Amino acid sequence: MTGGIEIGKEEQVTLDLLKKKMDDFAKERDWERFHSPRNLLLALVGEVGELSEIFQWKGEVPKGLPDWKEEEKQHLGEELSDVLLYLVRLSDMCGVDLGKAALRKVELNAIKYPINPTISSSNKNNNVTEDGGSEN
Amino acid sequence: MTGGIEIGKEEQVTLDLLKKKMDDFAKERDWERFHSPRNLLLALVGEVGELSEIFQWKGEVPKGLPDWKEEEKQHLGEELSDVLLYLVRLSDMCGVDLGKAALRKVELNAIKYPINPTISSSNKNNNVTEDGGSEN
Amino acid sequence: MTGGIEIGKEEQVTLDLLKKKMDDFAKERDWERFHSPRNLLLALVGEVGELSEIFQWKGEVPKGLPDWKEEEKQHLGEELSDVLLYLVRLSDMCGVDLGKAALRKVELNAIKYPINPTISSSNKNNNVTEDGGSEN
Amino acid sequence: MTGGIEIGKEEQVTLDLLKKKMDDFAKERDWERFHSPRNLLLALVGEVGELSEIFQWKGEVPKGLPDWKEEEKQHLGEELSDVLLYLVRLSDMCGVDLGKAALRKVELNAIKYPINPTISSSNKNNNVTEDGGSEN
Repeated sequence: MTGGIEIGKEEQVTLDLLKKKMDDFAKERDWERFHSPRNLLLALVGEVGELSEIFQWKGEVPKGLPDWKEEEKQHLGEELSDVLLYLVRLSDMCGVDLGKAALRKVELNAIKYPINPTISSSNKNNNVTEDGGSEN
Repeated sequence: MTGGIEIGKEEQVTLDLLKKKMDDFAKERDWERFHSPRNLLLALVGEVGELSEIFQWKGEVPKGLPDWKEEEKQHLGEELSDVLLYLVRLSDMCGVDLGKAALRKVELNAIKYPINPTISSSNKNNNVTEDGGSEN
Repeated sequence: MTGGIEIGKEEQVTLDLLKKKMDDFAKERDWERFHSPRNLLLALVGEVGELSEIFQWKGEVPKGLPDWKEEEKQHLGEELSDVLLYLVRLSDMCGVDLGKAALRKVELNAIKYPINPTISSSNKNNNVTEDGGSEN
Repeated sequence: MTGGIEIGKEEQVTLDLLKKKMDDFAKERDWERFHSPRNLLLALVGEVGELSEIFQWKGEVPKGLPDWKEEEKQHLGEELSDVLLYLVRLSDMCGVDLGKAALRKVELNAIKYPINPTISSSNKNNNVTEDGGSEN
């Protein structure tokens, strides 16, 4: 059993659970002394590099990665996880409540990019080109 | 009210909740067509860059960021969130269950780096220098 | 006149020239104290983020960027330059002769990836998928 | 002999020389078809990740890396070179003259950050905190 909240039959993974797991992991190995904010940030950059390597020679890939082998998708899941785990740990070591901050950021984004069904398609395109959807 | 699971008085933010919020956000703005895996990956790299800029001229900073102004910590929370939100969205567009993958990765790491209270301090140091704690 | 070596009518920009310019720039502004290796590395990551933002919502773009506006290409040149300038400065602050190291790396790559006109196209493809051309 | 311009006894490595070497390297291996701008950009991000991994668990390191083993410094030189080589190749595939762009950027930076010996030390500090020295 891996932990997490049971809802109906689904297990829900919370950011707090991951934070706790990373904290236990570091404590059990006496690695806390290595987990300074900038050490963790550089470790995160390292993992983003490994994630990029998976996509680097592939040209554009369609959503859902229909042509990828199971092994490749598993590897991808591991690299995405490494980024997440260091991000969770970095946030914790900085005293930032990442889940709360993320919910707040979604709300800020909704204010910054209001839903407007009447704007023209080309304008929307320009907005996205400049800003994306999660930019500060 | 921002959503999330109520446990006692604490609100728990799950990865699935963030995935749902990002999906709604993109749908409401007709931004799904921009959210290809490699577009999202580059957007993630952009946010990691903004996160790094916060730390770039500071030298080493202590855990908890005791000397940072409230405004700076808020900005940090926003950049950490941007990385998280794109990571969640990228995982979704790749068909990867990020929460499940992260729990699995923690278990793989526990196998890779067994707890061993008898190894010498210098050996532990070497392990960490090479591997970190969340490396594949 | 910007400096550099004149060869015939062409001006050649050397890595040593850029190193000297970055060194003068920092000295004149009393910024040397900020240029520690890890500060510069994070600044480099920040610039790579800005470079990625230029490409993030574009999907695949063809070589030569035929459809980009002059203004966009100029912006691109500035971000590529920012990455280069911090890379040159980081190398200098680490005591690494970047030009010499790069020539040596090209030679190492040539040994690692020998030219072999007889290997099949699919094998070449596999090599590249894993390694690229400048990997260590 | 590795090429480059001889000046007195020093060999000067130019960006054009590296561009030519990368071009030959790709042609000889039929790798040009993989060298699209976004493929190269992701490869660059991958190498920045490997560079970061070298520094990730070290805490702050002094200029000149006095305590590093020769082997570590060699490895560092290789990763710095990988970043440079992909940056040179990416610029070439985008039709950007990187050397020229870098000299121009240094001049733009000199205008943006004028030398002013009379500003107070604390003001200078603030400038640097926000901007660095090579920011656009």
